[in-house]
Amino acid sequence: MSWYNTKGRDDDVVISTRIRFARNLSGFPFPSKLDEPGARALIERVSGVFGEGWTVVDMTNLSRFEAASLAEKHFISPDFVSGSLPRRLIYSEVRGIYIMVCEEDHLRMQCILPGMALNEAYERLCGADDAANNALDIAYDAELGFLTSCPTNLGIAMRASVMLFLPALTRTRRLNSLFPQLSKIGLTIRGLYGEGSDFDGCLYQLSNQVTLGISEEDSIRKLNEVVRKIIESERAARNALYSDNPDAMTDRCRRAYGTLRYASLMSSGEFMKLYADIRLGISLGLIPELTLEALGGLMTDIQPATLSVNAGCEIGEHERDRRRAEYIRETLSATA
Amino acid sequence: MSWYNTKGRDDDVVISTRIRFARNLSGFPFPSKLDEPGARALIERVSGVFGEGWTVVDMTNLSRFEAASLAEKHFISPDFVSGSLPRRLIYSEVRGIYIMVCEEDHLRMQCILPGMALNEAYERLCGADDAANNALDIAYDAELGFLTSCPTNLGIAMRASVMLFLPALTRTRRLNSLFPQLSKIGLTIRGLYGEGSDFDGCLYQLSNQVTLGISEEDSIRKLNEVVRKIIESERAARNALYSDNPDAMTDRCRRAYGTLRYASLMSSGEFMKLYADIRLGISLGLIPELTLEALGGLMTDIQPATLSVNAGCEIGEHERDRRRAEYIRETLSATA
Repeated sequence: MSWYNTKGRDDDVVISTRIRFARNLSGFPFPSKLDEPGARALIERVSGVFGEGWTVVDMTNLSRFEAASLAEKHFISPDFVSGSLPRRLIYSEVRGIYIMVCEEDHLRMQCILPGMALNEAYERLCGADDAANNALDIAYDAELGFLTSCPTNLGIAMRASVMLFLPALTRTRRLNSLFPQLSKIGLTIRGLYGEGSDFDGCLYQLSNQVTLGISEEDSIRKLNEVVRKIIESERAARNALYSDNPDAMTDRCRRAYGTLRYASLMSSGEFMKLYADIRLGISLGLIPELTLEALGGLMTDIQPATLSVNAGCEIGEHERDRRRAEYIRETLSATA
Repeated sequence: MSWYNTKGRDDDVVISTRIRFARNLSGFPFPSKLDEPGARALIERVSGVFGEGWTVVDMTNLSRFEAASLAEKHFISPDFVSGSLPRRLIYSEVRGIYIMVCEEDHLRMQCILPGMALNEAYERLCGADDAANNALDIAYDAELGFLTSCPTNLGIAMRASVMLFLPALTRTRRLNSLFPQLSKIGLTIRGLYGEGSDFDGCLYQLSNQVTLGISEEDSIRKLNEVVRKIIESERAARNALYSDNPDAMTDRCRRAYGTLRYASLMSSGEFMKLYADIRLGISLGLIPELTLEALGGLMTDIQPATLSVNAGCEIGEHERDRRRAEYIRETLSATA
């Protein structure tokens, strides 16, 4: 099961957790300076480390929409979708670990899990990282830490992030005051799937900004603390927002549910807005017909490239809007 | 059963048919010049004519919202809701005949039936009118016809009208060219429940304008012919509109259905827009869950005063929006 199909801890607020390590091998130039034979040699060296239980995908064998679908599911970065060098994705779905070989760094190893799972994701990733360290000569400097292609990753070369669903903090405009505070303590937050200025989907990625002069453990501890506080603030803000005007909140959430259950054309932009309303409605008990679990992979499955993958061929915008609406109707009516 | 609860002929386009006769009694001044004892004497004289099978309502015994509800159901005119003189409504639901005593004229007798029923409404009304003529001294002049309070009604003193649902002719802007043509042949059309400039509810009342120098039969024959043509144009325009973009039409109608099924607050303005979309959807076969019959009295039952009547007391706007949404949900889910 992928991160988006499984129930996670605190998933009324935290959609998913992701930790990424950047690693490079001594004796190979960084990918930007690597030629094709060099990339092939690198891939061969790395592939030997991850054998049984791991799946290897040659990215150059995928159609563009197949590759883009992997990015929509956050298994790879958008930059990894296309490129001139040979590239491999090595992954273990059961571990939730996805390793890009020959991205900006030689290895970009990430663990992605549902809900709030910073500690678990960190432990799992360390396991894979240990395997890499034991078998490969990873470039490390006593002062600079892990050597990375981009200097902003030097040090622990770790990016730990959580995808947060913050409809109440968004609507009460309390995020505006939160943003600068986070920056002061070395964290950064950005809106995801923002269609307009209102952060329609109310989804945010909170991650550590600083990688130099801090340990992995401290970085994750700090992120854990801040996420805990945000979860509590968001829950309190939801209850306050509901208490302010229960009828209006109920109406908004149930209309979103009605539109998703009956529309026959749906853009992804409109979906993200309505999805925010039904997720909020579920967490407030306003949509007893649904559970967060029942939504399953809806958020990723209705993305453009993933719709093409499920259709078996690349499909145009109108057909996507039609199939998206159909898929949503089927998902929601199966659970009602 | 009232006009709005019954299936009518051609009711995909014609919601209801209404014919009204204005009559005055010799020996009584017109209502505008009538005093209270005069009005009482008039009422007594008229009440004797309509005995068994007729119900008499003393309008001064009704609360304001009870009276307004009768106007929302088109049983009485808006002017008849309040007034300083005694007023009576004498009606027979089974005949579809509603007689206002002491409105602008001494008697305003109307027959209102579902769907396209000009001939039947005319026949029924003539029956009641014969009873009045036999028992009362109705003011009539060989040259001017029936004498009426307002000179625009002189002659046949008849207003025959149909309530038309014209979403396709509205959206294709073909009504704009129809309006002046109708006026040339002595007919008039006006939008009903128009919230904005777009005639949101797509409902129109078509009626005869001219009452002098024409017979009742000729007037009704002409109206019949024109309505027949409008029905055919509207149906053709609906099919064309659907063929132009079946997906968009399906989406629009089914979203309206979804919103009506799930909203928990609904203004009457929004309802009229969505109601137009589901009526159109039903006629195009896009909402197999519903029939026009199943909609029943929805259009009248969700009007403000009627909601108060059904609540048993006068209710404010927010509570109306809540109860309106609830009533709509119950009506639609009963049939799905």
